[in-house]
Amino acid sequence: MVTVNHNYLKLPGSYLFSTIGKKVKAYKEANPQANVISLGIGDVTQPLAPAIIEALHKSVDEMGDAATFHGYAPDLGYEFLRSAIAKNDYKDRGCDIEADEIFVSDGAKSDSGNIQEIFGLDNKIAVCDPVYPVYVDTNVMAGRTGEYNKERGNFDNVIYMPCTASNGFLPEFPEEVPDLIYLCFPNNPTGGAITKPQLQEWVDYANKNGSVIIYDAAYEAYISEEDVPHSIYECEGARSCAIELRSFSKNAGFTGVRLGFTVVPKDLVRDGVDLHSLWARRHGTKFNGAPYIVQRAGEAVYSPEGKAQLKEQVGYYMSNAKAIYEGLASAGYSVSGGVNAPYIWLKTPDKMTSWEFFDYLLEKANIVGTPGSGFGAHGEGFFRLTAFGTQENTLEAIERIKNL
Amino acid sequence: MVTVNHNYLKLPGSYLFSTIGKKVKAYKEANPQANVISLGIGDVTQPLAPAIIEALHKSVDEMGDAATFHGYAPDLGYEFLRSAIAKNDYKDRGCDIEADEIFVSDGAKSDSGNIQEIFGLDNKIAVCDPVYPVYVDTNVMAGRTGEYNKERGNFDNVIYMPCTASNGFLPEFPEEVPDLIYLCFPNNPTGGAITKPQLQEWVDYANKNGSVIIYDAAYEAYISEEDVPHSIYECEGARSCAIELRSFSKNAGFTGVRLGFTVVPKDLVRDGVDLHSLWARRHGTKFNGAPYIVQRAGEAVYSPEGKAQLKEQVGYYMSNAKAIYEGLASAGYSVSGGVNAPYIWLKTPDKMTSWEFFDYLLEKANIVGTPGSGFGAHGEGFFRLTAFGTQENTLEAIERIKNL
Repeated sequence: MVTVNHNYLKLPGSYLFSTIGKKVKAYKEANPQANVISLGIGDVTQPLAPAIIEALHKSVDEMGDAATFHGYAPDLGYEFLRSAIAKNDYKDRGCDIEADEIFVSDGAKSDSGNIQEIFGLDNKIAVCDPVYPVYVDTNVMAGRTGEYNKERGNFDNVIYMPCTASNGFLPEFPEEVPDLIYLCFPNNPTGGAITKPQLQEWVDYANKNGSVIIYDAAYEAYISEEDVPHSIYECEGARSCAIELRSFSKNAGFTGVRLGFTVVPKDLVRDGVDLHSLWARRHGTKFNGAPYIVQRAGEAVYSPEGKAQLKEQVGYYMSNAKAIYEGLASAGYSVSGGVNAPYIWLKTPDKMTSWEFFDYLLEKANIVGTPGSGFGAHGEGFFRLTAFGTQENTLEAIERIKNL
Repeated sequence: MVTVNHNYLKLPGSYLFSTIGKKVKAYKEANPQANVISLGIGDVTQPLAPAIIEALHKSVDEMGDAATFHGYAPDLGYEFLRSAIAKNDYKDRGCDIEADEIFVSDGAKSDSGNIQEIFGLDNKIAVCDPVYPVYVDTNVMAGRTGEYNKERGNFDNVIYMPCTASNGFLPEFPEEVPDLIYLCFPNNPTGGAITKPQLQEWVDYANKNGSVIIYDAAYEAYISEEDVPHSIYECEGARSCAIELRSFSKNAGFTGVRLGFTVVPKDLVRDGVDLHSLWARRHGTKFNGAPYIVQRAGEAVYSPEGKAQLKEQVGYYMSNAKAIYEGLASAGYSVSGGVNAPYIWLKTPDKMTSWEFFDYLLEKANIVGTPGSGFGAHGEGFFRLTAFGTQENTLEAIERIKNL
């Protein structure tokens, strides 16, 4: 008899952003005149930069000509893109990462969900709380966790590391040593950043204990402060304990284009096996490469024109972040984030729960944000706003919140 | 301590096409003057059709304008594409499949590798032998099989259904009833097809036994005979036992564009759970949608211009198939396939093993094919050639083989 994967049944309700989408859709249908502004899901609004559009058109033309047509891409990514990444994101920052340690993919969500597949089911994972739901949910689906505990609002057999106002939204070393440690900095959802000395402590911890850090650096382009590392490989010893996930979604607006990459250094060996080979095998067996035209678009991110245009685009969003942060602070909210990240994390007023504040904001101000509790038990009583809206909408939203 | 997924270590050597790629690269480096023709990996050579190029340019322009920019796609696919698929691939053929039963993805390789994740690890799988390696390898990686048996050249705890000359390359019902049955028709690698009455028997068998058929119809565009079904949903009762995988790679040349889809009918319930919801959860958690521009390109496949242009493209490849089939037959080879599929399956001469014939063909005729044994133990002594080359190369290759 066919059995289903019963681990899926442990997941309570649907994926956070699907739930938000359904709620917003229902509200809009009931209130067709409402001008709803979304500062909720972390989706960008600015169009692709001209250098990227140009690269796309050029590569589309190549695909229309037999002489320059490209069929199956190399499983792990085109050499031109892997080299551009190695140079610009790593070597130019003093990180010792080679092109063949970079695995090009269709985005960081896929990679952050798939990376756990190369590990045994007996590994214990540690995550920040609050946290991007994909890390935990994919481990639940694989069977690496216990049941969902309704009272606590999280899963058994997972090490949650509370990130709260009292510890500056930075995780502390847990009592029990985890096997796999998911870290995301600059952080989604809190918008907090980690300094290089602080991250070095985690690298040392992982090396000492034989743990593996899965480091999600999807938001590195938003770093504005000097002592905040763009890559975990800026820390000494990271090659022997860390996998890094990166995205083109937020630095180049590729949320609808789909491109990302994962770095697995060849020095990373656990259980007698090098993880680089395992990930290569996974990638080569369950994935068939990112589209040629998309990889050419990714290459354009690193051209001089691309870099200049995207610096401007990131600046645009960061001025939104500043406006949200200052507007909320002046309205009396407790706010953090927004300096090295496109996310602003605020404490809900009047002891409202996160979802109560979600409904309140949607109904009273027609603004969509993301309930902190959707990111974990310690996100309860918090709320996330993103800087990815248009400037006009962002300023309008802040005015509405101020006038509540 | 971190453990790796030990199931990966059961896999013998690397993925078939990686091995071929390495062998060919080494040969070309040692013989830089050789004009090597590849009829090996099933990759297309014709450029994208004009209607598709036009759709790509148009949607790229949309991505460059804030008013028409598209960020995150709906997890399961854009409505415009899901509707076009439901209409053209299903309703127009009399199949009762709705748009919301279609899950758009980045390709059939991903889907055929990922689909097993929604099932329990205790399910026993059945595959044809020879078979597309991804079905088995991904089940090995998940832990659904036993060890690799070197003597037999396959895995313990998998039901292999021999497809040989004696049964016309069609699987027979196995002695032990399988839970998950992978079928691919028109078949890769043998190029064989199944008639509708024959497929109906499998549907009835699955419904009677509570099995699930995972039906890979990636090559349906190559069907030329009337009684060969394009979809398993042409069979009565398939909605309650079958998942269908489809690709744009072979009907529209999207091997480097990446687009596919999976159909999970809402009637498909096993173990008290509807599989549609499980796959939706998997898709929404571990995938973030296919690129907007690629989905627009997919839509163009169904436009009147797209259809006409692609019919011509498929015709081009099928005339290659005919040339290969007839050329080999006239040279005295035992050949099959090539009538409803772009693959020609031939018996190696002089009792050569498949890899011996691979080396022989590469060295003596500078032609790359795919060793049948790479697809399973019962592929030993066979060899696959594809019709996806250019006409010029294909005719030249046939001449070279004839002159051997």
